[in-house]
Amino acid sequence: MKFRGVVPPVVTPLTADGALDVVSFERSINRMIDAGVDGLFVLGSSGEVVFSDDARRREVIENAVRIVAGRVPVMVGIIDMTTKRCIEHARVAQELGADAIVATAPFYAILGPKEIKRHFRLIHEAVDLPMFAYDIPVCVHVKLSPALILELAREGVLAGVKDSSGDDVSFRFLTQARDEEGLDLALLTGHEVVVDGAYMSHADGSVPGLANVDPVVYVEQWRAYQAGDWDRVRELQDQATRLMRIVQVTNGEVGYAAGVGAFKTALMLLGVFETNTMPEPVLALEGENVEAVAQVLRSSGLLK
Amino acid sequence: MKFRGVVPPVVTPLTADGALDVVSFERSINRMIDAGVDGLFVLGSSGEVVFSDDARRREVIENAVRIVAGRVPVMVGIIDMTTKRCIEHARVAQELGADAIVATAPFYAILGPKEIKRHFRLIHEAVDLPMFAYDIPVCVHVKLSPALILELAREGVLAGVKDSSGDDVSFRFLTQARDEEGLDLALLTGHEVVVDGAYMSHADGSVPGLANVDPVVYVEQWRAYQAGDWDRVRELQDQATRLMRIVQVTNGEVGYAAGVGAFKTALMLLGVFETNTMPEPVLALEGENVEAVAQVLRSSGLLK
Amino acid sequence: MKFRGVVPPVVTPLTADGALDVVSFERSINRMIDAGVDGLFVLGSSGEVVFSDDARRREVIENAVRIVAGRVPVMVGIIDMTTKRCIEHARVAQELGADAIVATAPFYAILGPKEIKRHFRLIHEAVDLPMFAYDIPVCVHVKLSPALILELAREGVLAGVKDSSGDDVSFRFLTQARDEEGLDLALLTGHEVVVDGAYMSHADGSVPGLANVDPVVYVEQWRAYQAGDWDRVRELQDQATRLMRIVQVTNGEVGYAAGVGAFKTALMLLGVFETNTMPEPVLALEGENVEAVAQVLRSSGLLK
Amino acid sequence: MKFRGVVPPVVTPLTADGALDVVSFERSINRMIDAGVDGLFVLGSSGEVVFSDDARRREVIENAVRIVAGRVPVMVGIIDMTTKRCIEHARVAQELGADAIVATAPFYAILGPKEIKRHFRLIHEAVDLPMFAYDIPVCVHVKLSPALILELAREGVLAGVKDSSGDDVSFRFLTQARDEEGLDLALLTGHEVVVDGAYMSHADGSVPGLANVDPVVYVEQWRAYQAGDWDRVRELQDQATRLMRIVQVTNGEVGYAAGVGAFKTALMLLGVFETNTMPEPVLALEGENVEAVAQVLRSSGLLK
Repeated sequence: MKFRGVVPPVVTPLTADGALDVVSFERSINRMIDAGVDGLFVLGSSGEVVFSDDARRREVIENAVRIVAGRVPVMVGIIDMTTKRCIEHARVAQELGADAIVATAPFYAILGPKEIKRHFRLIHEAVDLPMFAYDIPVCVHVKLSPALILELAREGVLAGVKDSSGDDVSFRFLTQARDEEGLDLALLTGHEVVVDGAYMSHADGSVPGLANVDPVVYVEQWRAYQAGDWDRVRELQDQATRLMRIVQVTNGEVGYAAGVGAFKTALMLLGVFETNTMPEPVLALEGENVEAVAQVLRSSGLLK
Repeated sequence: MKFRGVVPPVVTPLTADGALDVVSFERSINRMIDAGVDGLFVLGSSGEVVFSDDARRREVIENAVRIVAGRVPVMVGIIDMTTKRCIEHARVAQELGADAIVATAPFYAILGPKEIKRHFRLIHEAVDLPMFAYDIPVCVHVKLSPALILELAREGVLAGVKDSSGDDVSFRFLTQARDEEGLDLALLTGHEVVVDGAYMSHADGSVPGLANVDPVVYVEQWRAYQAGDWDRVRELQDQATRLMRIVQVTNGEVGYAAGVGAFKTALMLLGVFETNTMPEPVLALEGENVEAVAQVLRSSGLLK
Repeated sequence: MKFRGVVPPVVTPLTADGALDVVSFERSINRMIDAGVDGLFVLGSSGEVVFSDDARRREVIENAVRIVAGRVPVMVGIIDMTTKRCIEHARVAQELGADAIVATAPFYAILGPKEIKRHFRLIHEAVDLPMFAYDIPVCVHVKLSPALILELAREGVLAGVKDSSGDDVSFRFLTQARDEEGLDLALLTGHEVVVDGAYMSHADGSVPGLANVDPVVYVEQWRAYQAGDWDRVRELQDQATRLMRIVQVTNGEVGYAAGVGAFKTALMLLGVFETNTMPEPVLALEGENVEAVAQVLRSSGLLK
Repeated sequence: MKFRGVVPPVVTPLTADGALDVVSFERSINRMIDAGVDGLFVLGSSGEVVFSDDARRREVIENAVRIVAGRVPVMVGIIDMTTKRCIEHARVAQELGADAIVATAPFYAILGPKEIKRHFRLIHEAVDLPMFAYDIPVCVHVKLSPALILELAREGVLAGVKDSSGDDVSFRFLTQARDEEGLDLALLTGHEVVVDGAYMSHADGSVPGLANVDPVVYVEQWRAYQAGDWDRVRELQDQATRLMRIVQVTNGEVGYAAGVGAFKTALMLLGVFETNTMPEPVLALEGENVEAVAQVLRSSGLLK
């Protein structure tokens, strides 16, 4: 199975005026590959896909494919509101050399399971790339049921799932059904705080946003899991969880501004990014919030 | 005040293979203008904005502006996930001759009031068109508070609101605060089943999707309201509400497929549209569901 | 039809140590009856039913029935988590002389329509009193569908609905279906800010918490509606809506503390209640919050 | 720490006419104690607490305390809508010999964190028993934040948490903060399908409803965890997860009817319960649904 192990969703660095900061992008990608990640996922939620116009999406993919240069597979988010636009993005991804695409259910318009399945099938027919379903109800406001996922997996429409559903019970039922049927379906968790539990639940890997900040801890954790060293898996999770507090220590910020804002700020403090600029209409963390992130980095030993 | 009265959100007719059906579009727009509507809103939710790629959006605006030819103002939905893309759409709308733009808060990414306000301000700065906020939490998953709307109205960022929030209590508080402050803010309701109540609540007009099917009833209702004939306002509402059952009589369909699906089917049955084709991944109503819509039209006297 | 017009949900006055303040209760009830209300609803949500133990419920009913002394019908809330306890409360209500009972769907346990219907049927079988369904999803977390309500009305299980669902569209469909079927089903709105819209929607009356503070405005509004004077209906609604700001002007309080807290504070300021004591674990409004309520009362002319 | 390990929420057996089936209750409790559970939790959600009147609550506690006879600690749910009634239930629990009480936040009335904290504090002051917070937003519609829990733990108000929140990320942050502060706070998971992940997250035990059906698997899992045998922990979880499908195989049932209905049906099929009678207004599983549960039991080897 090609898509397994640690596949960070790549945070997109911006210059102060909002352009793609290619130098920082290269530094960050190389840092993660050097740490041993098994793949990279660009244009995910934390890769600011929904803040990107078509030119920016293309720029991110082109640079990612060029920088990665085949060292690991590159997954590309084709997230958009409905099928037609997703197919446009999927074709661009394929043209530019992506190894897989990642799509959510449609959103904004209220659709049922019938339409959601047709959405994935139509995308699948339009390109020659394996597709992952991105299950992220906090953004899409629909949960992909295990039954729906399994049906599409049996048809060959889905190659895997990036699960950011927060529903660990459903995830466990899904992995078990997948194993009993012997389906070729890669099930990756997006919850960086409980990756150890996901591995217990037979996840095939993780897609941790926090791995942009500390890729080593997740790579070591994956290797410990492969070696059957569960105590070490847990110990590394505890370490990552302490670091994840960067998303909780800011004041006056919520959601994306607090979460990806903290990732970008940490990457700036670590010298990986030049700036912590956020995409409009989000503003970068400032002042005491930057210091709060720095303190977590220091207490985690990542920053002196 | 330019944007008041009945401003239907224009349903977009498609040919059997999914192209814009320009002939039906012209027929439908002219039918509504002939009935006396006060404006038209293209590329709204029921105008399938989120199902449209950039070329289709442009095609819809160009044709609408051409067909309307200044007879009534044309409002254009610039709905997209975040600011950058909304500004792109807003500039196209301005270039193509729109009279106003309609924008929701950002969606998919989780943002707070701070970012939502900045989103509207940035769009406002980018174009020279009056902007309506589109408050539709069932799609955007955030409710625009009266306080937020009033703040942006005072700044001149918002010229009005299309309220599809389903929160009639909040709407009443909003109209009252607007009147007390004397703000120039057009407050239109998007709930075609309770327009009479919205007029009681000092709405400046309505944006009824059902007016595509029966524009006359809403125009007469508005005129009755202007004449102070509340019994007639209510009577016409009762009539419209009976017709609105077309969205409830289908089996096996939910959300967009049931709602806009019924509108398109009714327009086909009335000879206004050639087909009831829906945008992918939604399928058109068929068989017994078409017949169910026809029965409502017959009992409403619209169809023989 | 016995249950129509203005039926305030009676706010329950407490002494400083949390006992029922019978003197204030009598004063408030008489004040509302003198103003011309058509009924009274004790032990509703704002009557702190869920904060009351069995002894307090009994005490409230006994005193209400005694004070009212047949001048208007007394409706009694029998709200509790599931059927068995609701039936206990219903029997007490009947024993103590209630004219009708008001029940929600079960809550806490997750039940479907099948169980909700059986719940209402079992209560109906257990007592000889007309029953109103209390549709309040903000508390019960389920919306009673028009179809469910109509089915129970046809069976004679429900005599009416107190609608606090906030779903004015659904309410309109419900009144229309009721009228077309000719069902004997009293449909009362619980939203004091949009009673005029509810009357437009053929509501049979209102259950406005705010009528505890100002019963006159709602009684006059009902009479204006009966007289067909819609402009006056609206004008009185505007007046009531301005007064309703007492629930919005406090700081640091949410939900029940802000809402019923403001009602009790207003009643204290008006000399109807001795204290604004709230049931545990809620604390009474204090200091600047009391002053904020007072200012609204003054600007409404209720307080000098 | 007294409250750790496997503490099943005891399912309450009923006779065909809805009385407490004391013989089955005794058989089931003894079966779980014989299997080695570390405690028992009566009158939890699956113990039908909200379906029970005061007499039934008392009957359940008395019988449980008598049957258990000190062999393991007995935790008693005091779940009710608000503080006053919870305190009544808490006092009864203390009087009848409970070892701990379990309380949710208030529900139905909309209260904020201030009132929720006061609620727990007032209960704590009223009795001399350790108290667990029951975090079950699917029923209570509020999530207890780690910050709120930690504050109450520092004050000695809370001795532990039964976490049925479904929020494994929050749970991990909570256990980590608890460990860093060295608080004496027992954190138990209520999610029987992912207990292994909860143990990875430093849970102190589990409260698995499914342990009524198969107590052995959870006891063995706990012992494997204590022995550091993570592979066995996972293997036993997989086994339990397969058995948990009894709640998914029924048709036409949702929520409580499908979940606790399946537990009762399995216990009847295993000869532990005489009937699978459910509390009103819920009906017992019948016909093909009983057979579907039986098939899962057979394929799990529990039934011949």
